[in-house]
Amino acid sequence: MGKRSRFTPDVYIQGILAGDRILLSRAITLVESSLESDKLLASQVVEGVLPHTGNSVRIGITGVPGVGKSTFIESFGALVVDQGYHLAVLAIDPSSQQTKGSILGDKTRMETLARDNRAYIRPSPAGSTLGGVSAKTREAMLLCEAAGFDVIIIETVGVGQSEIAVKGMVDFFLLLMLAGAGDELQGIKKGIVEMCDALVINKADGERAEVAKRAKREYANALHLFPAKENNWFPQVKVCSGLTADGLPEIWEMIQEYQTQVKENGYFNSNRSSQRVNWMHEHIRFLLETSFYNNPSIQESMKTIEEGVRGGAFSSIAKAKQLVEMFYGLNKDKF
Amino acid sequence: MGKRSRFTPDVYIQGILAGDRILLSRAITLVESSLESDKLLASQVVEGVLPHTGNSVRIGITGVPGVGKSTFIESFGALVVDQGYHLAVLAIDPSSQQTKGSILGDKTRMETLARDNRAYIRPSPAGSTLGGVSAKTREAMLLCEAAGFDVIIIETVGVGQSEIAVKGMVDFFLLLMLAGAGDELQGIKKGIVEMCDALVINKADGERAEVAKRAKREYANALHLFPAKENNWFPQVKVCSGLTADGLPEIWEMIQEYQTQVKENGYFNSNRSSQRVNWMHEHIRFLLETSFYNNPSIQESMKTIEEGVRGGAFSSIAKAKQLVEMFYGLNKDKF
Repeated sequence: MGKRSRFTPDVYIQGILAGDRILLSRAITLVESSLESDKLLASQVVEGVLPHTGNSVRIGITGVPGVGKSTFIESFGALVVDQGYHLAVLAIDPSSQQTKGSILGDKTRMETLARDNRAYIRPSPAGSTLGGVSAKTREAMLLCEAAGFDVIIIETVGVGQSEIAVKGMVDFFLLLMLAGAGDELQGIKKGIVEMCDALVINKADGERAEVAKRAKREYANALHLFPAKENNWFPQVKVCSGLTADGLPEIWEMIQEYQTQVKENGYFNSNRSSQRVNWMHEHIRFLLETSFYNNPSIQESMKTIEEGVRGGAFSSIAKAKQLVEMFYGLNKDKF
Repeated sequence: MGKRSRFTPDVYIQGILAGDRILLSRAITLVESSLESDKLLASQVVEGVLPHTGNSVRIGITGVPGVGKSTFIESFGALVVDQGYHLAVLAIDPSSQQTKGSILGDKTRMETLARDNRAYIRPSPAGSTLGGVSAKTREAMLLCEAAGFDVIIIETVGVGQSEIAVKGMVDFFLLLMLAGAGDELQGIKKGIVEMCDALVINKADGERAEVAKRAKREYANALHLFPAKENNWFPQVKVCSGLTADGLPEIWEMIQEYQTQVKENGYFNSNRSSQRVNWMHEHIRFLLETSFYNNPSIQESMKTIEEGVRGGAFSSIAKAKQLVEMFYGLNKDKF
């Protein structure tokens, strides 16, 4: 109620479609807001721009800390905007909940790209749930598309299930690695490698260039062991240096080649279709949870029940069932 | 309806409380079942045994594939049962969805322990959601406790968020590592190290004993950098060999020492209390989702709506909202 100034949905929608960055940023803030009133407004804005979305190349980039993601994106982004594209970079960092750090916390990151008016860089704060983070990033991506950005990079750090969330919203998924970190291909990283469309060995400059080339051959051999993907694309292994920009044009060409191939063989559309369906199910779960937890009667009962469960007087399962039954008895007037 | 033979809840409850392993196994199968009729029966059985649960030492063990988890548990388990305890080992493997493998798929694993009648080994199949896996494992744990097992080991592989799920159901969380894998302490594993009560360097036998000792010092130094935990326990670094059993008595002593300390300072109870509350919330989310997706009217509408969303005719957000509103309009007769 006036505490924070908000506009009508149309102001955001028209502003975004006109490419107004200030209104774009404020709309993304709405999408990230946890205020009930903002949520309604945000969904109206996202719905409003929806017909103007979908026309970008969506690229996911992941890699462990230290692999050089920001330097890579800074140089790669410069190359992309120099070719006339408009680039938006969104960064999600689900790990920051535990470590209290943010991958974009360092203000000096991507300085040059941030000053380029053909690029837009926006960190996504970590939410309390992965589903929440993923929904917010996806909506921010749609807003950026509506604002005219035709290349979207979604950056994430190689932690937990964030890669799965990002894979679920992009066309092309790129894993940045370092030479000599071959052990990481085993075990824990296997799932991530399986999801990748390209494995890029970064920091292939100076003395490390030779090692990187050797690693490229090893990785290429390792990738041969994986079965062919449903998109008929064989994951590529590339070598580059974010620092010197060597190898970056080949990576951009590869991504464009990928787009051409999957658009021809139909995978591009079928993948985006599946992503839309998955997104609906994610949103259903989100709505079920929020309508339950925001219900005043549930909130009122919850405190006493939580105390009883905490103390061991009540069973967790029985009380969960009781609360859900109570909610369903109440919800007639929920909407 | 007779297709699979099922008993009344009381048969399972009395059987479990009498320590009948066949009925215990069949009850765990019920808990893991996705049949609607089994779910009701399972919840009645779990509710019935609940007053007889909670009296075990709950230990979580994690580590990447190849770290020697089965050999460790085989030897450690032998030590524990030799001291008069009854040990149940549950293994969850959320990665098997992607890789189609199971960490207990190899039948020769833990052969000796499996033949020991003071031990009970049970793999948990991967569910479709992490929440599902975690709920089933937690309920299997309670059934084992009611059957008289006073040490429970929950084994998981170092993938995705399974550690977080296991951490949420155990008293003591142990990370198995290898010497020379120091790089893994960085980046991706940091979150897991933060959750640990002990970091154990396995395979410290033969020529590797010296390297393991050196690694122990390095890890101990690294752990000093982490802030003190709320339980006032300083995570220990230990060295052992699952193969020769060297160092295992010290690990068991450490766990008992931990139990004594946290029971004295109140953390044991407060941690279990929080776990019970979290479990209630997990179960609420599970009930909300299953009641929605199992609703016949929702199932009927879902197909058409999914097709429309897939084809791009409908918006994911709008249709999610419509389905949830429809469900809430319907659910008066849900229970």
